[in-house]
Amino acid sequence: MNTHTALSIPHLFLLIALIPVGARVFGALFERIKQPPVLGEILFGILIGPSLLNLVDPHTSELHLFSEIGVALLLFVIGLETDLYAFLRSARMSFVVGTIGLVLPFLFGYGGILASHRILQFPAGEDHLIKLIAIFTGATLTATSVGITARILKELHSLQTREARIILGAAVIDDLLGIIVLTIVSSLALSFARGVPVEEALSVSSLLTTFLLALGFPAVSILIGLFGLKLMNRFAPGLKLETVALPFAISLAMAALATLSGSAGIIGSFAAGLVLGLLPPRKEILHGAETIGKIFTPFFFVLVGATLDLNALFTSGNGLVVGGILLLLAILGKLLSGVVVRGGILPKIRVGIGMVPRGEVGLICAQKGVEAGLLSPELFGAVMIVVMGSTLITPPLLQWVFASRETARG
Amino acid sequence: MNTHTALSIPHLFLLIALIPVGARVFGALFERIKQPPVLGEILFGILIGPSLLNLVDPHTSELHLFSEIGVALLLFVIGLETDLYAFLRSARMSFVVGTIGLVLPFLFGYGGILASHRILQFPAGEDHLIKLIAIFTGATLTATSVGITARILKELHSLQTREARIILGAAVIDDLLGIIVLTIVSSLALSFARGVPVEEALSVSSLLTTFLLALGFPAVSILIGLFGLKLMNRFAPGLKLETVALPFAISLAMAALATLSGSAGIIGSFAAGLVLGLLPPRKEILHGAETIGKIFTPFFFVLVGATLDLNALFTSGNGLVVGGILLLLAILGKLLSGVVVRGGILPKIRVGIGMVPRGEVGLICAQKGVEAGLLSPELFGAVMIVVMGSTLITPPLLQWVFASRETARG
Repeated sequence: MNTHTALSIPHLFLLIALIPVGARVFGALFERIKQPPVLGEILFGILIGPSLLNLVDPHTSELHLFSEIGVALLLFVIGLETDLYAFLRSARMSFVVGTIGLVLPFLFGYGGILASHRILQFPAGEDHLIKLIAIFTGATLTATSVGITARILKELHSLQTREARIILGAAVIDDLLGIIVLTIVSSLALSFARGVPVEEALSVSSLLTTFLLALGFPAVSILIGLFGLKLMNRFAPGLKLETVALPFAISLAMAALATLSGSAGIIGSFAAGLVLGLLPPRKEILHGAETIGKIFTPFFFVLVGATLDLNALFTSGNGLVVGGILLLLAILGKLLSGVVVRGGILPKIRVGIGMVPRGEVGLICAQKGVEAGLLSPELFGAVMIVVMGSTLITPPLLQWVFASRETARG
Repeated sequence: MNTHTALSIPHLFLLIALIPVGARVFGALFERIKQPPVLGEILFGILIGPSLLNLVDPHTSELHLFSEIGVALLLFVIGLETDLYAFLRSARMSFVVGTIGLVLPFLFGYGGILASHRILQFPAGEDHLIKLIAIFTGATLTATSVGITARILKELHSLQTREARIILGAAVIDDLLGIIVLTIVSSLALSFARGVPVEEALSVSSLLTTFLLALGFPAVSILIGLFGLKLMNRFAPGLKLETVALPFAISLAMAALATLSGSAGIIGSFAAGLVLGLLPPRKEILHGAETIGKIFTPFFFVLVGATLDLNALFTSGNGLVVGGILLLLAILGKLLSGVVVRGGILPKIRVGIGMVPRGEVGLICAQKGVEAGLLSPELFGAVMIVVMGSTLITPPLLQWVFASRETARG
């Protein structure tokens, strides 16, 4: 996505003043009608975004930066509140859930497009092209947007539940596998747009490297972090750390290093939170990060809203029908990923719903498809409907299933 | 000053992680050698700025935004810690000090250039041109940079002293009059560059409007703020306000409105702090603003440092000599502004030294002079020496005179 910058300091100041307060007001209104505040924040974003009032361009570089810092801080706070060892204990289950939650939506999206082509003659084209479009569409349905789920779990004070740990872990896996999906899809787009054979644009060894780097970064950084803590405990046991600027810097630096080494940014800050959460001044660090997060994090959710394009709802009839079907398939695919979770029906449903939100990664995939001339505007509209629907439907559903009495801790 | 933006999110993340932590480390080192931390932060800025390591370009739009938010938050915090009524009581004295502290340095700078022309034949040129250059140079010496002084007074817990209030008030007056000076100087530069007669570029009525707007904004906004508080106390006495995002938004919005209505931005946020300081949750607001300030405010001081160009020290012999003389005159002019303060010699010196730092406004003036072809690079170097010298000499001096036992409260 391009970034624009042409705003003066006073103009930026007004936007930076408006967004956290507007988000807060809409959040409070939604709380009053027993809905998750985050839904209010996203709707506030739709309101001030290009679809309606057009006060905010979500691609303004400064606002985009605030939003990226916001989601990094959110994941850092979630990491601080997550018990690293309990998290690692449910890693295997997370891996299974995350993988199913990636494969099923992909297959459903792929099949959905093939079926739609046969039944509705939409999208139209040769078999080879349709297959490519189907791969692309499937890919856009894969990545879970962990921000929304994490925020709601935090608001419901449910981060200590087993389901929350499984969801977070699965979303991490999803984000890592999503990088691979994005690599594959970008290569396919490149190969299609330039007429290069797929084998040239995409090598198995480079995919393997991508995967190892993506997975390696959080693993290695958590190990180094734990080792560093041990060293600190031995050689400087009484060392007093600054609890605001330093943790903030560590979470941003880890996000940057994660991105630069081929992993996902928010996973870097999540890992930083997991490790720093083992330090004695965890409470002070958490308090500082939450205070600063009150400024930055609303930018993430408001810009998520501002990115949603209501015009997608006024796309052609075919786009709307396919969008609706893809949305159902996207929800079903993620819901089914929860089936493997042990316990009654509730934990399965909780985990499944927690995986439903799709976000930026899906839109980036779709955008690449449009740029390569593979996806039509109608299909982009359909993907927008999936992102919009899954983003807006999850908060109330998640609040509903997590507010149920039966809370599994352990 | 132009702004550039071409940095990726990970690159920005690393810079945004580096600056507050580096500032903190250098500040702590300076504290250990009994020097003001802010001096360490500025020197850290010189270190990572274009003169030395070249890690940071102070004109990067995102970093510039962080710095502007930082100084707005600093002045907001200073406003929160300043007693509005005591501040208004010393307003007359502030006005006198501020006016003297503007007129004397201007006259000294003006005379200094005329004398240097006669004695050193530097700068060279016709009488008419020399007079314009002298006016320009005088103008660059006028504006006090309140950020540095305010920060040191806060660190020394001296904001409650009479001298601190006089300095803050005088710096506010200076900033407001500085807008007039900048307007005059810009018009002169325009008239010179385009060959337009001065009378056309500069009208007395427009100057008067500028002055009234600059002075009117803080006055009106404080009155409206006080009135709003009275209304709130009457109609919603138990109203609980959000103490992090809302005050942050108010301080930025007031800074933006101040700039847009022709006043100085930081005066808007200072006024916001003065008024919000009268609210019951003052402590919570202060705590929140200070926590967020720990992230943003270091950007201001580090960028102040990064803007200082060490190459100015390697300018021609004439530039160096004139720079040194101007620096002495600049210090003397501000020192003399303290003479009118009542009490012994200490309060006079305290106020005088508090007014010494020059900053961005002087450099902007000088930059305009260079762009108009009026100031030579040597003279720009001389102004840079004034800014650098006054910025670096003030923190230790101020700490020294304020650490003296005899503290006048009242």
